[in-house]
Formats: sequence, C-alpha cells, structure tokens
Amino acid sequence: MPLINGVASGALDLRDRGLAYGDGVFRTLRLHDGQALLWDRHYRKLAHDCAVLKLSCPDPALLARELTQASAGEPAGVGKITITRGPGARGYALPLRPQPTRIVSVSPAPMRPAEWVTDGVRVRLCATRATFQPALAGIKHLNRLDSVLARAEWDDAEIAEGLLLDHRGDLVGGTMSNLFLAERGALVTPDLAGGGIAGVQRERLLEHAVSHGVATRVEPVSVARLAAADEVFLVNSVIDLWPVRAIDGVGIWAPGPLTTAAARWLRDGD
Amino acid sequence: MPLINGVASGALDLRDRGLAYGDGVFRTLRLHDGQALLWDRHYRKLAHDCAVLKLSCPDPALLARELTQASAGEPAGVGKITITRGPGARGYALPLRPQPTRIVSVSPAPMRPAEWVTDGVRVRLCATRATFQPALAGIKHLNRLDSVLARAEWDDAEIAEGLLLDHRGDLVGGTMSNLFLAERGALVTPDLAGGGIAGVQRERLLEHAVSHGVATRVEPVSVARLAAADEVFLVNSVIDLWPVRAIDGVGIWAPGPLTTAAARWLRDGD
Repeated sequence: MPLINGVASGALDLRDRGLAYGDGVFRTLRLHDGQALLWDRHYRKLAHDCAVLKLSCPDPALLARELTQASAGEPAGVGKITITRGPGARGYALPLRPQPTRIVSVSPAPMRPAEWVTDGVRVRLCATRATFQPALAGIKHLNRLDSVLARAEWDDAEIAEGLLLDHRGDLVGGTMSNLFLAERGALVTPDLAGGGIAGVQRERLLEHAVSHGVATRVEPVSVARLAAADEVFLVNSVIDLWPVRAIDGVGIWAPGPLTTAAARWLRDGD
Repeated sequence: MPLINGVASGALDLRDRGLAYGDGVFRTLRLHDGQALLWDRHYRKLAHDCAVLKLSCPDPALLARELTQASAGEPAGVGKITITRGPGARGYALPLRPQPTRIVSVSPAPMRPAEWVTDGVRVRLCATRATFQPALAGIKHLNRLDSVLARAEWDDAEIAEGLLLDHRGDLVGGTMSNLFLAERGALVTPDLAGGGIAGVQRERLLEHAVSHGVATRVEPVSVARLAAADEVFLVNSVIDLWPVRAIDGVGIWAPGPLTTAAARWLRDGD
C-alpha cells in the first residue's frame, strides 16, 4: 500500500499542487529486501531537486523506513518517492506555509527480455522534442509531458526506448534513460543544460569512468555524432544498462568494451 | 464539493497520471448563477487542448451540469475543469485503455482592489523564462512549473502580475494572463508558437478587434517594443481586463482608448 505523509492511502487531496501544476519532484529506484539500492545518491539527488523548487525535503531515515514499509509483499520492486508542494488554493502563488506531500510507493519490477541486457536494445528517434527550460534542466520534476508525448509515438514492443532531441537538434536522452556514447575510448553523454533528467546512474558512470582513467565528455551530441559512435548504451536506476544494438535510421552497434566496463562499474561500484 | 468523474469527492486516485506527469489539461472560468460564462468558447478550447494530448474530452452538457452542481453555495465563483489521462501504471507509456479523470470544482472569486480594473496594475518582469515546447504551446496543460517559479519571485501584494520572456528574450505573457499592447491604433499580442497559454479572452479580443476595424498583430514582442507601446493591458477569464499602469524598469502608462474599447468588447461581446 502506498504511504501519503506516512499514512497508508491510495487517495490524494485533490487540491495538491502536484496535480494542479506538476509542482513537485520524484525519484524511482530499485529495492533489495525492501532497502533502496544506492540510497545515499538517490537521497542526495532528491534533496537537490527539492532545493531547486524550494521544497523542503523530508528526512532520509524517514523516507527509507517508508520505502521498506511500502515494499511489504514487493521487497525487490521499484520504489517511487514523490514530494509535492502539497495542497494549495487555486492560483500559482505558493501557499503561505506550504505543507509538502510525500508519497512513497512500490511497484513490481518490470519484466523485460533478458537479451536486452546482453545483446542490446532497438531504439528510435522521437519526433517530439525535449522541453527547453534551463531553470529546471536535469531535475526530475513532475512536468513530464515531453516524455509522455515521445513515448506515445510508438507501441511496437520490440522498441525498448525512444530518444529525444532538443529544439536545436541535439540529443537529450531517452524518454526514461540517459544516453552514453563511446568515442575512441572516451565516454560521452549529452549536456543537459536545457532539459532532460540527470539521473543517478549517469552521475555514477561519469565518476567511475574518471576513476578508471576513462576520459568523459559532457557535450552537445548531434545525430551525426551519435551515428559515428563506436558504442551506444542507455542507463537508468531500474534497467541499470542496456547496450543499444540499433537506432532506427541511424545505425547499428554491437556491445563493445566500454559498454561492458560501464555495466561492470554500475554493478560493482558504489 | 468537487466532483471527480461525477462523484462528490476531495480525493484523487494516487495513480493518476495528472499527478505523475502532469498528463492532462484544465480550464478556469467564471460562473454566473452557477452557469459558466462563455461556455461554448471554453468548451471548444478544452476540446482542442484535449485533442492535442489525444485525451477524449467529456460531453459539454455533462461538464456544464457538473459545474452547476459543484457551484452550490458559490454560484458566482471560479469554475475549474481538469481532464487527466486517468490512472496508470508506473512509466510513461499510455495505458492501453485510458480512463480519463474529469475533475470539476468551484472556488470563491478572488478579491482584488477595484482600482486594478479602473486605474490599472503594477507589473514586473520575471527572471524565470517561459518553457519552450512548440508541441504544447498555447495549450493549458498541467505542466506549469514556469508559471509557478515566476510567481514565486515576488510577494509584494502591490504587484498584480509578472511577465515571462521566452529563451530568446521575447515576451510570452503573464504568469496567469495574456498580454496586449496598443501600437499606433493596432492591437498587438505575443505570438505563442513556443510557449504560454492562448486563453479564451485573447481569442475573443483578436476577433472583436477585427470586427471593429482595429488591426491586430500576433508577433514576437521584445521588451523594447513593450516599452514603446502606447497602451498595455492584460486579460484572462477571471480578471477580464487589467490596464497596466507600470512595469517595473520598463515604463508607465495610463489606460487609453484601445484599452477602454477592449474592456467594452470583452464585457458586451460574445
């Protein structure tokens, strides 16, 4: 059962600004035995994203306890934490004394073909462009219509993910994942100065690459640059890492050495 | 009491995609004797916005009845209709058979100083830039963090509204209103190809101007152009029209003939 402000409930106050304006942030993470994996990193990111919206972030021990509580019956599921501005009167002005809403829930881990991890996934380029909003770029806020529209572009179950370009035509990432390229031994990921979500796995990978002596570049990535990459893969906290074996109309790849190393760093590293 | 899918309730299914992703649209309108003013126009706009998100829009007679029902005790209040994609599992993919949620509620009409209508309002330029997303521009969807951040920039009750620029530096409009300029006898309003909400009063005004022989221009409007305008005013469905008497750091104005005419068209026209 989900918890709303610590109380088991499946019903939200209709006046919540999370609904009215998407005024809040969220996190999605994997559980093991009811414990959040990489909790320190997820909490740090949650606290950061709350700070950008000037939301007060709940105590980490409280959230960890509530994840465990909500995971009863689903101890290896996917945890989700949502923090909203809480209830408010009609209108954009912040409530005088905001009472943030915290929502903790756990879903079953999604079932995906095992080959997606070993052989890689097929991916498409979406026509929907990523929303451009530098003040919120990288933040996992509740204004996600660009990902919704992009994900609605296909229903072919063979296609694992769609990539979004920004309004200039540079890549931002997947609808639910961060994109990496291997380029002559270096790891490249799109700069997220204008949009997209800077996920925890992306952050980990950039750190681990450096500590393994692999150069990293966070830069604009055009479709031509993507097409010329030596390897391509996607990461997020639920899938870990999917090699990309094909991007429709762009190219095909086989999982290469940097992809293998990255998957190992994510599996074994902190 | 608000109505959720026709049932009096103040609690929303936590799995609603309106909360998770802002996957929905809304309308705000004035009531008189429990009847929505300008209902045909509001419904047309709601149906249009639903169509952009590929949401099925409820029947107009049903919504009108529910507005009346929800307005008991507040027959001259502000009605709000929200249509979301409805409940869904975790993840951006649309539910196989979406069951949209319709929410109808009524709030008291806001109290504002009477001089705001007669003498005009003081306005500021916000530092927050409007979100750029051409696929959703003009639509009153639930991804409204740009307006939330902009409105949070001030708490001086003397300031009635804040204006947002787009990422190029052109004006989009107010956090909750559409902006008009009078320029040598013509009516000018920012082009909303990249962001903002194209409100019903904006649409009415553009139509009435034409039928009164007043030229209209829907174009990019720079701050310099705004500063040089002969008259400036704001419109929306709750306030109708506020002349702008001052924009901090930009200029001061007195209500002029086009402002007066526009207020009359909105008051008397269809």
